[in-house]
Amino acid sequence: MVHVIDIDDPADPRLDDFRDLNSSDRRPDLPGGKGLVIAEGVLVVQRMLDSRFAPTSLLGVDRRLGELADDLRDVDIPFYRADADVMAEVVGFHLNRGVLAVANRPEPLELGEVLEKATTVAVLEGVNDHENIGSMFRNAAGLGVDGVLFGKGCADPLYRRSVRVSMGHVLRVPFAAVDRWPHDLDVLRSKGFQLISLTPDPRAVPLAEAMTGEKVALLLGAEGPGLTEHAMRATDVRARIPMAPGTDSLNVATAAAMAFYERVRLPR
Amino acid sequence: MVHVIDIDDPADPRLDDFRDLNSSDRRPDLPGGKGLVIAEGVLVVQRMLDSRFAPTSLLGVDRRLGELADDLRDVDIPFYRADADVMAEVVGFHLNRGVLAVANRPEPLELGEVLEKATTVAVLEGVNDHENIGSMFRNAAGLGVDGVLFGKGCADPLYRRSVRVSMGHVLRVPFAAVDRWPHDLDVLRSKGFQLISLTPDPRAVPLAEAMTGEKVALLLGAEGPGLTEHAMRATDVRARIPMAPGTDSLNVATAAAMAFYERVRLPR
Repeated sequence: MVHVIDIDDPADPRLDDFRDLNSSDRRPDLPGGKGLVIAEGVLVVQRMLDSRFAPTSLLGVDRRLGELADDLRDVDIPFYRADADVMAEVVGFHLNRGVLAVANRPEPLELGEVLEKATTVAVLEGVNDHENIGSMFRNAAGLGVDGVLFGKGCADPLYRRSVRVSMGHVLRVPFAAVDRWPHDLDVLRSKGFQLISLTPDPRAVPLAEAMTGEKVALLLGAEGPGLTEHAMRATDVRARIPMAPGTDSLNVATAAAMAFYERVRLPR
Repeated sequence: MVHVIDIDDPADPRLDDFRDLNSSDRRPDLPGGKGLVIAEGVLVVQRMLDSRFAPTSLLGVDRRLGELADDLRDVDIPFYRADADVMAEVVGFHLNRGVLAVANRPEPLELGEVLEKATTVAVLEGVNDHENIGSMFRNAAGLGVDGVLFGKGCADPLYRRSVRVSMGHVLRVPFAAVDRWPHDLDVLRSKGFQLISLTPDPRAVPLAEAMTGEKVALLLGAEGPGLTEHAMRATDVRARIPMAPGTDSLNVATAAAMAFYERVRLPR
């Protein structure tokens, strides 16, 4: 069971990992960033507890401690109990969700670990919006996608906003970096993945026709620029979602959701 | 051509329609609300100009006036030209997009007008999030959906944030209210639409099997509560998107996008 420690003083140094979240986590992944991973709210904290991200402490109001009692039974870390005003002073804003957990980053997974039992993966290039990355993980979890791979130029998936928008699924859906981009996509090919570029190009094949592999890797670029030609050349086929003329490209997490859906639309 | 009027004084009463946008548009649709429709940014202003929402004036910086010159050639309304600081004082915050247009609400469309040539429509119940409604219209436009119908308990689609998130498509994709809810769904049935409820219920039929109509109306409820039993009983079939076990329901705009995609995935 967690050790409950009551906190009245927002300056208490034991809360430093939760301090000024809006600024201190701006770039947690960079040198100087603390590299901490923050879970917000009961549901996301539960998902963190059930993930490879082991929390080191929690900060929350009494009511959330009650709601998490079962989940925290076998967890031997401090729960700093405070009222909403003290919490707001620590984190720097009023927090509706009433509970936070903090974890250190574990060692990143290797590409091979993510691919081991996977049959559907998403591969991102230049997706630098934390909210889109969060949505992508939420959709990946919902539609049974086995992993997410990060090519060049993507934002940190463990940023606080990504974790929140993903509803904690970024802590559960495995991800890894593709180091030599796009050269290391050959690793996927050698493991039998069909590599599919998603593009709005009207000359591309409709996704439903292009997607023929038993194992599929879906490459997606950022809204606007899309995938680089360099990356698309490293894939097997260029596929498009049939769009109405004169409209914009879709949001990247939405486009990904449609491609994930194409994989599961009929029970196999 | 627009009449360009230079503005130095943020208190100029001619700008009152653009004043304090964060508060004055809080509920523009309610009695006491001004009922104005605001377009932000070059792309959305262009879409407004090409819609049934006729702007009454524009406010913007000189650069945006230049970018809109072709679009404004045949438009006989004032363009209030100001610098970014004056604009920020008028609207109440700094506006990156540099140009706004304001329109009055035209008469709402009738249900019959929206259905006239339609083969795919979305029907919403209890969707009260402006951002989700905006995303829904963006996805509807991108995937060739012909109209959106509003049942009980939905938010105003013409709220500023909806217009922005929709990238202006809420001004272009026709929409109407279903007044007697859900009774008036019979109007759709009499026009040959298959009525499909989207639900996460695992007993429902996979969407790809359920969707058999030449004309289809897709009913969607808010994330969380979903459609009411009352509404689902008024439809022909309950359909689900096949989801991974133990995950949450999808965001409503994302679920809608998948259903829209199911209609267009293969060229007909």
